[in-house]
Amino acid sequence: MGEGFGRWKMGPDEELMQYVDVANVACGFHAGDPSIMRSTVCLAKKYNIQIGAHPGLQDLIGFGRRRMNVNPEDMYAMILYQVGALKAILEAEGMTLNHVKPHGELFFYMHRDGKIMDAVLRAVRSFNVPIYGIPNEAQILACQRLGIDFRFEFYPDIDYNDSGSLVPVSESVATTPQLIGERIRKFALEDIVLSNSGSTVPLGFSSGPFSICIHSDLPQALENAQVAREVVSKLSEN
Amino acid sequence: MGEGFGRWKMGPDEELMQYVDVANVACGFHAGDPSIMRSTVCLAKKYNIQIGAHPGLQDLIGFGRRRMNVNPEDMYAMILYQVGALKAILEAEGMTLNHVKPHGELFFYMHRDGKIMDAVLRAVRSFNVPIYGIPNEAQILACQRLGIDFRFEFYPDIDYNDSGSLVPVSESVATTPQLIGERIRKFALEDIVLSNSGSTVPLGFSSGPFSICIHSDLPQALENAQVAREVVSKLSEN
Amino acid sequence: MGEGFGRWKMGPDEELMQYVDVANVACGFHAGDPSIMRSTVCLAKKYNIQIGAHPGLQDLIGFGRRRMNVNPEDMYAMILYQVGALKAILEAEGMTLNHVKPHGELFFYMHRDGKIMDAVLRAVRSFNVPIYGIPNEAQILACQRLGIDFRFEFYPDIDYNDSGSLVPVSESVATTPQLIGERIRKFALEDIVLSNSGSTVPLGFSSGPFSICIHSDLPQALENAQVAREVVSKLSEN
Amino acid sequence: MGEGFGRWKMGPDEELMQYVDVANVACGFHAGDPSIMRSTVCLAKKYNIQIGAHPGLQDLIGFGRRRMNVNPEDMYAMILYQVGALKAILEAEGMTLNHVKPHGELFFYMHRDGKIMDAVLRAVRSFNVPIYGIPNEAQILACQRLGIDFRFEFYPDIDYNDSGSLVPVSESVATTPQLIGERIRKFALEDIVLSNSGSTVPLGFSSGPFSICIHSDLPQALENAQVAREVVSKLSEN
Repeated sequence: MGEGFGRWKMGPDEELMQYVDVANVACGFHAGDPSIMRSTVCLAKKYNIQIGAHPGLQDLIGFGRRRMNVNPEDMYAMILYQVGALKAILEAEGMTLNHVKPHGELFFYMHRDGKIMDAVLRAVRSFNVPIYGIPNEAQILACQRLGIDFRFEFYPDIDYNDSGSLVPVSESVATTPQLIGERIRKFALEDIVLSNSGSTVPLGFSSGPFSICIHSDLPQALENAQVAREVVSKLSEN
Repeated sequence: MGEGFGRWKMGPDEELMQYVDVANVACGFHAGDPSIMRSTVCLAKKYNIQIGAHPGLQDLIGFGRRRMNVNPEDMYAMILYQVGALKAILEAEGMTLNHVKPHGELFFYMHRDGKIMDAVLRAVRSFNVPIYGIPNEAQILACQRLGIDFRFEFYPDIDYNDSGSLVPVSESVATTPQLIGERIRKFALEDIVLSNSGSTVPLGFSSGPFSICIHSDLPQALENAQVAREVVSKLSEN
Repeated sequence: MGEGFGRWKMGPDEELMQYVDVANVACGFHAGDPSIMRSTVCLAKKYNIQIGAHPGLQDLIGFGRRRMNVNPEDMYAMILYQVGALKAILEAEGMTLNHVKPHGELFFYMHRDGKIMDAVLRAVRSFNVPIYGIPNEAQILACQRLGIDFRFEFYPDIDYNDSGSLVPVSESVATTPQLIGERIRKFALEDIVLSNSGSTVPLGFSSGPFSICIHSDLPQALENAQVAREVVSKLSEN
Repeated sequence: MGEGFGRWKMGPDEELMQYVDVANVACGFHAGDPSIMRSTVCLAKKYNIQIGAHPGLQDLIGFGRRRMNVNPEDMYAMILYQVGALKAILEAEGMTLNHVKPHGELFFYMHRDGKIMDAVLRAVRSFNVPIYGIPNEAQILACQRLGIDFRFEFYPDIDYNDSGSLVPVSESVATTPQLIGERIRKFALEDIVLSNSGSTVPLGFSSGPFSICIHSDLPQALENAQVAREVVSKLSEN
């Protein structure tokens, strides 16, 4: 959430608040600005939603979704900067930072590059909060070594490939609320996802708690969140 | 300090460290970037120097020295953002934020506009640190009301006008290290400054502690800091 | 038009194309980026619409609508830069620059400050195209001296004050398509506008051709443009 | 040249003017801003120097030297934008654009990626000026197809590898003015360069005119330019 910039809007943030427990707030590098961060934080406070930082690459024009080379020491400083900025805005409202969730290409960069992964994780550690995402083995080991909690996420509104890895938003096929409901059920009950080639891929989350991530910038974000909430509520009843 | 940007440098930061007790670090809006902030913080740590946040207007191209209208609520969020970003970088190094010192035109904007003053002070309050500057009566009252400590500053390297107000760097006459030494002595012993019209102006600081501010971006910054340190040391011996 | 930025959209550009003869394209300083400029130019080409440059203040976050002090020599260079950038994009499509129309706060800055007016007009002159806007006396004289054509504009979707001057978008009362139609008729037939205090104010355009400006970023932009086109068509039939 | 930004300086531009025939001026994306572009153009006019556009990646903080993925259509628009901006500034001074020379990582990106090469060359073609650089075979063929003149350049102040390709500034070993003189002589008389592994590599420029490029941002830029000018002058006498 909070992925507008200046006068530009992105996503139905307030309408979404009723369907979520936790929101990730952009920190000004791929989207967002101080005022949007603050109004999103105030909105979350009103709806009693927890807030995580959603730091990204320094690429407003590409919405943090373009590959770019960043020096790991620069990356470390950029994460401290973005998360620290949001944390101060939260604390001014009497709220606390819930977690950090790397955005867009930064998410993929951490999977590809061990030095970038290490830089991000070291920065996260200094805030003493969990990181949200889909850890590969290297990330699991590094989090254990650094004493960082990792919260697994499931992404029902974008695609997975045959090895169970996430496909970038720009390369994912548009989905429907129906499909999102199905994906959540399949994942929650059977721990599997249908990949973009049609294969059934086990994700291996079964052992612990997980989050479900809905993108607020997709055209059907509101219906996607609504159906996700409904499915989760029904599953919880049983 | 830390007023470079990307590959661009400004001021002899490391050489200055030996002459100062406290440094103000730019926070990325008028100058600075996350990596420069971090390297400046590490430099300060090495020299055992305290760090204050130096937030400014969002105006890289004008170095935060141009007047621009900012909505007070936007200003409040911008101060939280900048100071929070630096605070996180400090804390990752085991350091703490010493104070906040508004930069350039933001300093003057606070003197001119009560709503901007209020926005800045409310943001500073949420960090529970003192503010550095030259408080006018409105600021003194507001700080008392909000429970913020104000540390008085003396600026020996730029001009004062006949009412004892500071003159912007760009309108000040270039000074010499000799003049800086004289100004500090006169101020410390007699609580007066010679204004830009040649008048003797009492500043009214005598009752409390004060800081001496040296601009790191002026051509003779290093000599200015050196002479300031020498004069202060001699005055302290007596 | 072209007032998005990166992934952020603003205004129904393509839908508006059918109702206009000429479009003003943002040049990357208050809004727009090279790719958006180019796609807007290509859209205009498809609909056979003329394009003018819409340079603004260097203030993405404030959409060029905040007051800021700019040195006149900097302003001169900024206008050359923005208009030159658009001109090259037009020429790559075999189109030519139709005019220059200062955006938002730049429009008002030119009315307030003779040096800024002069800087903008000198820059416009070097492109040898007309300027669009509402010239005050100083601008009329300067244009005559510099040999620049001035095209008068009427703004039916924002307010005028009692002296016949334009009120900034942010201070204007929201209008309706009906009111826009009435305003155009009143202006075209009687050369008057109803001010924001309810007074009838003569605008003095009667002697020459004029343009009608519709803001693409207002919520009812599409209906506003549609009704403006209908009223103009009817008036032209008589 | 013109590689400062706002108050930040880079390189001794005016001192260099006496040693060069042609200068490449940054266009605001990797460095430079409208006012710096204009003052550099005015300086070139004073010294009777030709000006080429030096467009780069949109990466101020990385000085256009970091790899980043850019969509070819975005790249095409970015080159038009940057070069068009400079061209307008030149024409306002009665000067003409001499050529286009891609900067930093954009230079290398064109060598690596055929679609980016094509995008840049199509943009250059619309200005009807030559491109400066080191063409690989693909670039030579594309220029012939598009009708663009290619001016070969020699870079005596950075390294070449064993296949005769340029090494990025950041990976090159610091050089001396003496070495620069030797490199120019060897290249001009024998068409060879000593690679960073010590091998003698033929460059194949012998058949035509060439330019010698000196980086204005290297620490010894002024001495480098001076010795280059002296060697060229001596070689021209014979």
